[in-house]
Order: sequence, then C-alpha cells, then structure tokens
Amino acid sequence: MKVTITQENLNHGLTTVAKIAQQRGSLPILSHVLLKTVDNQLFIAATNLDIAMSEVIGAKVDREGSITVPARLMQDYISSLPKGQITLELDGTNLHIKTSDKNYTSTLNGTLSDDFPAMPEVSSGKSISVSAKELVGSLGRVLFCASHDDSRPVLMGVYMHSDDKGDVYVAATDSYRLAQCKTSIQSKDPVSLIFPSAALQELLRVAKSEDEKVVITYDEQQAVFQVGSVEIVTRLIDGTYPEYQKLLPSSFETTAQLSREDFHEVVKISSLFAREAAGGVTLHFSEDDNALSIKSIASQVGENTATAEAKIDKDAQITMNSRYILDALGAFSGDKLLVQVNGKLDPCVLSDPSDKEYIHLVMPVKS
Amino acid sequence: MKVTITQENLNHGLTTVAKIAQQRGSLPILSHVLLKTVDNQLFIAATNLDIAMSEVIGAKVDREGSITVPARLMQDYISSLPKGQITLELDGTNLHIKTSDKNYTSTLNGTLSDDFPAMPEVSSGKSISVSAKELVGSLGRVLFCASHDDSRPVLMGVYMHSDDKGDVYVAATDSYRLAQCKTSIQSKDPVSLIFPSAALQELLRVAKSEDEKVVITYDEQQAVFQVGSVEIVTRLIDGTYPEYQKLLPSSFETTAQLSREDFHEVVKISSLFAREAAGGVTLHFSEDDNALSIKSIASQVGENTATAEAKIDKDAQITMNSRYILDALGAFSGDKLLVQVNGKLDPCVLSDPSDKEYIHLVMPVKS
Repeated sequence: MKVTITQENLNHGLTTVAKIAQQRGSLPILSHVLLKTVDNQLFIAATNLDIAMSEVIGAKVDREGSITVPARLMQDYISSLPKGQITLELDGTNLHIKTSDKNYTSTLNGTLSDDFPAMPEVSSGKSISVSAKELVGSLGRVLFCASHDDSRPVLMGVYMHSDDKGDVYVAATDSYRLAQCKTSIQSKDPVSLIFPSAALQELLRVAKSEDEKVVITYDEQQAVFQVGSVEIVTRLIDGTYPEYQKLLPSSFETTAQLSREDFHEVVKISSLFAREAAGGVTLHFSEDDNALSIKSIASQVGENTATAEAKIDKDAQITMNSRYILDALGAFSGDKLLVQVNGKLDPCVLSDPSDKEYIHLVMPVKS
Repeated sequence: MKVTITQENLNHGLTTVAKIAQQRGSLPILSHVLLKTVDNQLFIAATNLDIAMSEVIGAKVDREGSITVPARLMQDYISSLPKGQITLELDGTNLHIKTSDKNYTSTLNGTLSDDFPAMPEVSSGKSISVSAKELVGSLGRVLFCASHDDSRPVLMGVYMHSDDKGDVYVAATDSYRLAQCKTSIQSKDPVSLIFPSAALQELLRVAKSEDEKVVITYDEQQAVFQVGSVEIVTRLIDGTYPEYQKLLPSSFETTAQLSREDFHEVVKISSLFAREAAGGVTLHFSEDDNALSIKSIASQVGENTATAEAKIDKDAQITMNSRYILDALGAFSGDKLLVQVNGKLDPCVLSDPSDKEYIHLVMPVKS
C-alpha cells in the first residue's frame, strides 16, 4: 500500500471512526483502525462488534493494500501533524508515515487486516431518507430518556415507528420518564425499529455538522446510517417496544402555562435543596395566586420555596424528581411551557404550546 | 442578624471564599462559611486550617450578628438566585433568605459561629506591595514546578527571596525541573519566604481578575495576601530552601535558537510515541543540518522522528521527559526560544532571548 492524502482528510476520517475502537478489550484488533485502498480512495473503519463505522476519503493511491494500526495513536498523531500532504507506505506490517516537508517521519507497527472483523452489510432492505438536521433534532430530544438498565433491553433503545397515516415518530422511555417526537419522515411501509442508544449517539456526533440527508437502510437485524461519506452499521434491538401511547393522557384536570425560563429557574434552585430527598420536589399549582410554587425540604440543611408566575385553571399538587424535570427542560426551546397534571399518581406532561410535535412525560414519585 | 445585600455582592464573596470550605472532613464546621456583620458590612470567611480566606462586602445592616451555614449549598443557592436585593435574617440558628420579589424564600440550618476557628492574624510584620497582574504573572510561571511529594515539605512551596541588590525572585522546583522568575518587587529588607502552593493557587484565582495591588504582610510563621476586599491568610513553610542558584549554568556548550511554536509542535508529537518510555524523548542538536530533531521510540507501537529548523552552534544530544518540556513551554509566550545544554547529564535550560527574567531548567533522564 502506498497512498498520498491530505492531513485534513485523513484527520477527518480518523476523528469520525476511531472513537469506536476500544482502548481495552479482549480482542486487541478492536483497538485498531482499518486502512484499505478502494479504487482511488482510502477506506477507514473501526468496530466494537456492536457498531461499525467507516468513512471513505479521497486519496492518491500508488499501490493498493490494507493494514490495521492502533487507532488512538494514529488519530492523536495525525491530528497533531501540520496541514498538508501525508504519505502512507506499507512495508510488511510497518506503516511508514511521512509529511511532505519530511519534518515528521514515523513508523507504526500494524497488524494484518485479515484479522479485522468483516464490516456487516445490509444487502437488501427498506430505506428512509431524511434531512440530517431534522433527524438530529428529533433524536436529540428523546435519546436521553432511553434506559441504561440492561434488564429490559428494548428500553435501552429509541423506538422509531409509524402510525396509520404514515407519520413517523421517535420515542424513548426508561419507565420514569418518556419523550415522543414526531419526525418529518413519511413512510408508506409501516416502520417499527428499535435503535441502540450508543449507535444513535455516534450518529448524532457525525450528523450534527452535516447539511445533507441521512439515509437509513434496514433489514430485520440491522440498520445502516449513511451520512455523506460516513457509514454507521448497527444491529437493531430485538423485541417488542411497550405500547407507550396508552400512557399519554388525552385530557388534564390542571394546566399551568408559564415562562419556560422561569420554570427552569425555580426547578434548578429547588433541586439544590432536594439532594437529601433524592431529587424529589413538590409542585404546587395555585389558581388564586396565579403561581406555580416548588417546595423542597432538606431536613439537615434547610428548606426552600421558589415561585413562578403561571396561568393555572385548577389547584393541584405533584411530587417529581427534579433531575428529570431539568433533563426534560433541555429538550424545549420555546418561550412558553405547558405543565399538565391529572392526579398525584398520574404522569405530569410537559409540552410547548407552539410546538405540538414533542411531548414529555415525567412520572411522579410518592410524596 | 438582619442584613440586606445585593445578590451580586453576596455571590462574589461566596464564590471567593467558599471553595476553601471542605466538603468532607473530620470537623463539620470546616464545611461551613462564616457570615458576620462588621460595622455596615458583611464579613464572609472560610478556612481549612491551612488557609483562611475572607471577603468584606457592602451591606445594609439592620441587626448585628453572626452565623455559619453550609458553604456549598449557600454558594450554589445564592449563585442561582436572580440579581437584586436579598435579605438575610437570623432566627436562632436558622438563617432566613428572601429575595425582594419574595419568589424565593429559604431557610438554612446554621451553626453558632462560636465554634468557627478564629481567623489567624499577622499583627506586626513586614510588608510588600506589588501589582496584582505582575505577581500573578511571575507566580504562574513557577508554581507548576513545585513538588507534590510531602517527603520534602520545602519543595512543596514557592520560594520568594531577594538578592543583594534587593531584587526579589520567585522559584520552585520538584528536583526534576526548576523555574525562576525575577519579579518587579524591590525590597530593602532581605526576603526569604516559602509560600505553600495551595495558598498561591487561591491567590492566583482571586488576583487574576484584579487590577489593583496585592499587599503581602508576613511574620515568621504566616503571611496575609490582601487583594482588594479579599484576605488570604496562610502559614509559611518552615525550613531552608535548597541553594538552587548553584544549579543554574553560567555557560553552555550548545545553544539552539528556534521558533517556540515549532519546538512545541515537535515535542507534542514526539510525546505521543513516548508513552511507553514514561515520556522520555531524545533531542538531537545538529549544527550541519540546522535542525533540532526529536526521536521517540515505542517498541510496541512504532517510532517517530520530528524535526524543527534551528540555529545551532555545536552538536549535542540529551534525553528528557517530554511532559516536563511541554509544561515548561506553557510558561513562555515569545516567538523565539533558546534551548541550551552542556552534557548528557547536566540540566537543559530553556529561556526566551527577549525576556531574561525567566529561566527554566529540566533535568535529563538516563538514556
């Protein structure tokens, strides 16, 4: 293998894929990154067996070949080099790397690429195309609600599914809170896919700065996200996602409408006094006072009452984990917020009166 | 105690001193901050017994008094409150805190201030006055060389001392590297003080944003740094600082002059390959090539040679820890750098040809 490539392109490829390579693990080759000439391009790939990432970058190929080299060192090294042309030349399993001014010359001890796990392929399958910006927006608003508890694997993913009108939604829940976002995707075929959170985190990282489309191709077992020259292959989570739609209340006894920023302030300050109580704070909805007040009591250190002005149609009271409310507020950006409750034991629903696409449920804690 | 104070002033005082309060420790009161009315001001203080910090802030005092409250909660709470007037009112050991719009009302359970350690005082003593900016500059260039090894306590501090002309220097060494900076201070009295690093770190934090003078008052045992309305009291380290001046070479066999940025690049890149060798890299000074090259070899992963253009008067070679060189380079800001060596076993000296006030020595490692 002999390849000439710009530092900028090589660095982009390595920054994209090398994060997937494991630093420690039972299989040393998984800490490596694969470099392989394909036509007049360089294919760069890494995998942790759950997720495989690759990018194809432009290169001048003088001699075909392939090798794997330690991912972290290769990435740190290339990212530190000055901009300009870099030559990669393979001699046995030694990869010689030279900058064109010859100020930097190095040799990395590689491993034969024969041992590198084959990249999984989704040969035939259905596909969805969506703007990167919109997909990142929708996924980012639900992904943080996915569970980290591996006793219920389906909850560790994000559920993408279509309704009978062909509208596609994404949703995630860890059974303490739930978020659903309607996407801009329209699908004739019914969609029902559970994507692992880890793969979506990589997708968000890569697609965040992309203006292009993301193409999702999937079969029964796995899915490929194609973002520009980057491909992310992931297995799908097997199983049936809970019918969470049944949890979404259709009507509310009490609705508070208030400034999102005010609500954020009072929850944040209340949470300081809720550390002893595992984050629990009690929301008091007062119709007469036009106020939503939060009381938090820390028996050892003190107590606090924080009040925000709000339009309220009926008195109510509910105790929730302040951390979940703060997490939820990160998914909103409008001026106003609706906070709606039924009873002390029913979920509290947060939504933006000017954006009906997103809904967030937080379960109460026993007060 | 009943005090009205602005959120901005109270937050400034708490941000300054509360960091000193210990979260965990044998004495619970050390996790508290002292609030005490003094004339028409509020005195805020915290101590960890080694260092005591206080700030006096303007306040409207309606009723005198004092109390200690949990430092971290108080700071987090006050910093989260909106700008404006805050009332602090003491009832027994309960401190009631209210914002003027009454949207936030809280009660902190305090502890009687009788149990709070008395702030140490430097009653009579000599004093030095210096511009905060200059002191921060000089200390910042040497402080990182102080030792973390408590087997030689004097090396855990920064040595401030005067020469026979009255010029005052600061110096620090951990016996692997040494930095000395000449300050703008002139002192008629001979100065010989060893300040603990931790206290200087607090001083740098506080004095960084100050345009004013720092007044250092000291006696045999302790010193006070006065920065605006803030006071930092610290014990001095007892003992005799090594006569490090003997280590400073007066002449050099080899001098390399090169761009500081180039040198930083080649050291940084070489250090990537020096991880296996505990950071050791070998500098090759070549007169014929007008080049300073650094070789680093990692037997497992590969090797690297990085070269920077340099004016060199004689060939030489020395092996050093790349981490120490990178640390040292953080203390330089000029365009050019002098790298000077005598033998393989003698210290390498870094200096800026246009700034003779600062000198930095790095000891070689055996190659």
